[in-house]
Amino acid sequence: MNDLITLTTDFGLGEYAAAMKGVILNINPQAKIVDITHLVRRQNLVEGAYVLYSSIPYFPHAIHVGVIDPGVGTNREGLLIECERGFLVGPDNGLLLPCARKLGLMNVLRLTNPRYFLETISNTFHGRDVFAPVAAHLTNGVKPNEMGEEFREYQDLKLEYHEEINGNLKGKILYIDRFGNLIFSIPKEIVNKYMAFGDEIEIEFVGRDNSVTKKVPFVKTYGNEEPGRLIATISSSGFLEISCNLGSALENIKVTPISEILISI
Amino acid sequence: MNDLITLTTDFGLGEYAAAMKGVILNINPQAKIVDITHLVRRQNLVEGAYVLYSSIPYFPHAIHVGVIDPGVGTNREGLLIECERGFLVGPDNGLLLPCARKLGLMNVLRLTNPRYFLETISNTFHGRDVFAPVAAHLTNGVKPNEMGEEFREYQDLKLEYHEEINGNLKGKILYIDRFGNLIFSIPKEIVNKYMAFGDEIEIEFVGRDNSVTKKVPFVKTYGNEEPGRLIATISSSGFLEISCNLGSALENIKVTPISEILISI
Amino acid sequence: MNDLITLTTDFGLGEYAAAMKGVILNINPQAKIVDITHLVRRQNLVEGAYVLYSSIPYFPHAIHVGVIDPGVGTNREGLLIECERGFLVGPDNGLLLPCARKLGLMNVLRLTNPRYFLETISNTFHGRDVFAPVAAHLTNGVKPNEMGEEFREYQDLKLEYHEEINGNLKGKILYIDRFGNLIFSIPKEIVNKYMAFGDEIEIEFVGRDNSVTKKVPFVKTYGNEEPGRLIATISSSGFLEISCNLGSALENIKVTPISEILISI
Repeated sequence: MNDLITLTTDFGLGEYAAAMKGVILNINPQAKIVDITHLVRRQNLVEGAYVLYSSIPYFPHAIHVGVIDPGVGTNREGLLIECERGFLVGPDNGLLLPCARKLGLMNVLRLTNPRYFLETISNTFHGRDVFAPVAAHLTNGVKPNEMGEEFREYQDLKLEYHEEINGNLKGKILYIDRFGNLIFSIPKEIVNKYMAFGDEIEIEFVGRDNSVTKKVPFVKTYGNEEPGRLIATISSSGFLEISCNLGSALENIKVTPISEILISI
Repeated sequence: MNDLITLTTDFGLGEYAAAMKGVILNINPQAKIVDITHLVRRQNLVEGAYVLYSSIPYFPHAIHVGVIDPGVGTNREGLLIECERGFLVGPDNGLLLPCARKLGLMNVLRLTNPRYFLETISNTFHGRDVFAPVAAHLTNGVKPNEMGEEFREYQDLKLEYHEEINGNLKGKILYIDRFGNLIFSIPKEIVNKYMAFGDEIEIEFVGRDNSVTKKVPFVKTYGNEEPGRLIATISSSGFLEISCNLGSALENIKVTPISEILISI
Repeated sequence: MNDLITLTTDFGLGEYAAAMKGVILNINPQAKIVDITHLVRRQNLVEGAYVLYSSIPYFPHAIHVGVIDPGVGTNREGLLIECERGFLVGPDNGLLLPCARKLGLMNVLRLTNPRYFLETISNTFHGRDVFAPVAAHLTNGVKPNEMGEEFREYQDLKLEYHEEINGNLKGKILYIDRFGNLIFSIPKEIVNKYMAFGDEIEIEFVGRDNSVTKKVPFVKTYGNEEPGRLIATISSSGFLEISCNLGSALENIKVTPISEILISI
């Protein structure tokens, strides 16, 4: 077992994430902690699941803690998932599953042994009181089956989604990055079935309050188009991405909040 | 002495915090640096003191640098505080004291020996030029009394505050977290003296421009209430917290900037 | 060669920076990664160059990755720059040069050997696919000339700029920090030629839409002036800085976006 622990939360860059690091280093002073992000939009499970899915597979074998946890303090379980390429620790609400499958899901345990939690468990902060200590004890060599027991009724969540409806290919928003690039739920394999580089495609962006239709070229990379032009491409994580060369697709499209995409096929 | 150094500042996530890390690693390449936060609101001593107080006690013995420093470049002293469970380094303005007491305050020194500062000391950035090098030299085994001398007239600051006025329990705002949860200065012991889980309490939120009165249940955790409902609870740091299940208490209350709370008792 | 790698990007605090860390740790699990910042304003080369220039020189010998990369996916080269006090890795667009000169520029290579890149190179994310793996292989002891070949036609960029025009000393905006302090391109030596501490100077701040003229004292530090007063000083990085004691110079001046400064001499 190595000493590497990553953290993915919606806690912000303050005392909450810091306390988790303190707890970990208190249990294993040799632990090496890497922040994935603490800025997942509040309680947004899909975004958290996407961030884990798109970054964790680049890591070597490690323990990955993910905490987007609207159900904290209720009777939802805590999970420890064993995968071929690492462990995932966090709440039972689907958050960890897309990443777990990508890492080679082997075994899901629910955390049952309070010996590996902090002595006092708050009702509002299991990231610090349950998941951080469990991750740290794992790096100390504690065996998963000492901490929990097998569990089959865990919550699931899928990032991949597409549907053919009335001559349209439909997808859902997964993530909006810092650049205003939009990542949709249609995976590369499906995209490639319906379009080829160079195609001009017609896309309707659907939001709660309004919708907009645009003609967009499907291209290999940003830099090939004129500045400010909307483009469709494959994201570095393997999903359909709508971008804007030297600009923000989000600002260009002006549909808020964007929820769906309908592509004429 | 171990190699762990934590950083808590209002410097933002840019070149200032980075330069501090460079200085530390230049003096001790083995140092292990953990960011607590660099996003304390500008020059907000109370918020900085609260962040240190609520996260540092979870850490093992380490050197904790805190720099919220409106007086930089004037004749305010720099402090090195020895505690049972770690060292604190930063400006003499009260910032470090609440955390120091929680870590078991033993001895306060003022930094007097320029040998352990950078050679050139700017007038605007003692975080880099004074406090970071002192912390790094500490991890290298330099003794505190080689760096400074005992000091008794240090500035103090207290987070805990409550007062009984005209049938009201009064508290002050300490911190607003990323979720819009409000932390007030009334400690758990006082809260428990005046209310029990299940009570419905009447709270007036007082700001500069307006004030609002709300009926709020005092509950154990977020998840037990209907979404959007304002609740009072005990924060994971042990103070009175006003939250909103699946929402933002700050947005719900609409008092800006919130400064005080008055609870009918 | 040591194991220290720093990261400076405009990728934000999410999955992009995290994936770079994963790639690095996958190639060298001993690597020690320090974030300089991931919040450089989108595709702002000058700001990125300034951040590298003002923070990296405080570090010991290390590998510094900088990725502000509007040309990603086009035929721009990737660079590995050998300096006396470290290595710089990133795109060929001038970003790395001001810092490279400060670290003692010795040799510029363009990255040509795909053996040291990820196997699949996306068109949108060379930070992860090219620059992170090159940096990690460097810490593993791979020699620079195994990864690239000497290159002389690299892009340059200079932070220092001043001009005397019609009785004015002209400079350009380099950076606006979290405090609203404005850093201009006029270096300390030039500033000191034209003014002395205590001088009252007349400055015109020029933006795209409007301009404002202010009388500003040139002082040694923030704390000596009355709160809210605009001041000119030397930044901790050695450039002319316009600040506001206990306030934001940016908000005080109300010129947006600020591009130039004209000082009456």
